[in-house]
Amino acid sequence: MGNVTVLGAGSWGTALAIVLAENGHNTLLWTHRENQANEINEKHTNQQYLPEIMLPNNLFATSNLEEAVATSEMVVVAVPTKAIREVCEKMMTFLTRKVLFVHVSKGIEPDSLMRISEMLEESLSPTVIEDIVVLSGPSHAEEVVLHHPTTITAASSNLHAAEKVQDLFMNQYFRVYTNDDVVGVELGGALKNVIALAAGISDGLDYGDNAKAALITRGLAEITRLGVKMGGNPFTFAGLTGMGDLIVTCTSVHSRNWRAGNLLGKGMKLEQVLDEMGMVVEGVRTTKAAYQLSLKYEVPMPITTALYDILFNSKDPKVAVDELMIRMKKREIDDLH
Amino acid sequence: MGNVTVLGAGSWGTALAIVLAENGHNTLLWTHRENQANEINEKHTNQQYLPEIMLPNNLFATSNLEEAVATSEMVVVAVPTKAIREVCEKMMTFLTRKVLFVHVSKGIEPDSLMRISEMLEESLSPTVIEDIVVLSGPSHAEEVVLHHPTTITAASSNLHAAEKVQDLFMNQYFRVYTNDDVVGVELGGALKNVIALAAGISDGLDYGDNAKAALITRGLAEITRLGVKMGGNPFTFAGLTGMGDLIVTCTSVHSRNWRAGNLLGKGMKLEQVLDEMGMVVEGVRTTKAAYQLSLKYEVPMPITTALYDILFNSKDPKVAVDELMIRMKKREIDDLH
Repeated sequence: MGNVTVLGAGSWGTALAIVLAENGHNTLLWTHRENQANEINEKHTNQQYLPEIMLPNNLFATSNLEEAVATSEMVVVAVPTKAIREVCEKMMTFLTRKVLFVHVSKGIEPDSLMRISEMLEESLSPTVIEDIVVLSGPSHAEEVVLHHPTTITAASSNLHAAEKVQDLFMNQYFRVYTNDDVVGVELGGALKNVIALAAGISDGLDYGDNAKAALITRGLAEITRLGVKMGGNPFTFAGLTGMGDLIVTCTSVHSRNWRAGNLLGKGMKLEQVLDEMGMVVEGVRTTKAAYQLSLKYEVPMPITTALYDILFNSKDPKVAVDELMIRMKKREIDDLH
Repeated sequence: MGNVTVLGAGSWGTALAIVLAENGHNTLLWTHRENQANEINEKHTNQQYLPEIMLPNNLFATSNLEEAVATSEMVVVAVPTKAIREVCEKMMTFLTRKVLFVHVSKGIEPDSLMRISEMLEESLSPTVIEDIVVLSGPSHAEEVVLHHPTTITAASSNLHAAEKVQDLFMNQYFRVYTNDDVVGVELGGALKNVIALAAGISDGLDYGDNAKAALITRGLAEITRLGVKMGGNPFTFAGLTGMGDLIVTCTSVHSRNWRAGNLLGKGMKLEQVLDEMGMVVEGVRTTKAAYQLSLKYEVPMPITTALYDILFNSKDPKVAVDELMIRMKKREIDDLH
């Protein structure tokens, strides 16, 4: 097989690079930190993000971006959302051919309100984009590297591109579906982090599984309302990248958005939480963007609005969640339509 | 307020009786075991089903069924599914007026393939039924008695009856919605137990959260396919009694169906599991009924079919779950339609 590249050596980027290497592809993992690249090449570990995991011998790292993408037939963008534009602009300084781009980020850019594929289109040029595919679904890195069965969706407006990505990643434990609904897949992946923060807060308040199940259910309803208005397919939100990813993010101890919410529910302030985590919490940025989208598209999103008030207007989490639970509709169906 | 009655002093029946008593209603709890009735009246406890919980003083128990329903304006049927016909037939020997019946059972009768409200209609007579309401949703008894926020749906073809039940149960921590889709609410509540068994098996095999999220997502898709064919509203399956109850049952340690599946996944045989649990596992009976419904309505239900093979044809759980994960469709959307 040819060469494939993953940009970003966090836990998910590294896990995907492992899958590709295990599938027999020559895999290059780019990180902007030279010492991390050295660790991967010399010790075959990435101790900070995937402790105790040995990396395959055909997985190499580099901190030189031009070298990383020089001969690749597929570039997987797995850097944090806020670093995407910078990395793309750097690639534009040397790329002279079309590349298949895959992104695995789950966010929406605040203020511009762009989805990730829109950010890629804007910051790269059509002369270097063969296709853009989003890879998304219920998939904790920590489980993928242990070969636990995982299902995931590759979505592109060009289904052939999605199928190529499917072929490169698919194996016995990593099952890849295809979908042509990029809008629905990207929105489902991004907005679930808002609901995960809310679920974490409910758990932090010790409200139990009944309350959390209600929040998750209403959460998917408001994500779907917005997503359909923005052009997504309602079935996508009921699928792996919508409901599936929402469930895993809201109920798994691996989820950093749930963990951040949990600390908020226990009474910690946002600044403290972000310090404590020492990792990017995409849901915080996404809450702001989701709130702005609910205003722009005039879609009522009570959970998103409550989260926005907790994060950015210092609203008390207990008061906000109690109001959400009490907010009464006479008929359930009216609330879902 | 008038008198209300709950039939069945298991954990859920007792929890609902506590809610009604705390709302100020004179509440009678019927149990066929005289010693349990004595414990409730004398010690105000139900140690076997809700250990360490003190029952309210206005909650009384009786083992005399005629006395239990003599002056009640609402009778809540909370006995195990397989005891419902027997209890109804006994009531028919003395009831001479119309009563509002509420049921909280989550099952489908094997062979007759009747929903619970259909069983009630058949085993009671129209001369004693004022209305039938089903009360269902994500609601572990253990959390309700601790006053954790819980949301639930009261469904009836007569919305006024559902609203009366809403008024009797509603309080600060127990939020009741109404819905007129009895078919969808009853099917969602029953069929989620099949998926909970499957999720438990996956966890028993140590397959992790990614695999479980995929099973839950595909599980709701097959429940919805069948439910819509049987006349349910698709929005009901996306709501509290569908997705909400499915999530809580598949992810909570309180769920006995999940626990039974977990033991199966760890290699225990069905007979051993049922012995070990010492409680009714509705999902086992429901799996048989759901499998029969999938044949009758010609709806493909791969998870239900795999469960049926595990429970009744001695299929190896690991082989069955692996086949489910591998069963590949080229496009995700095709699978959901």
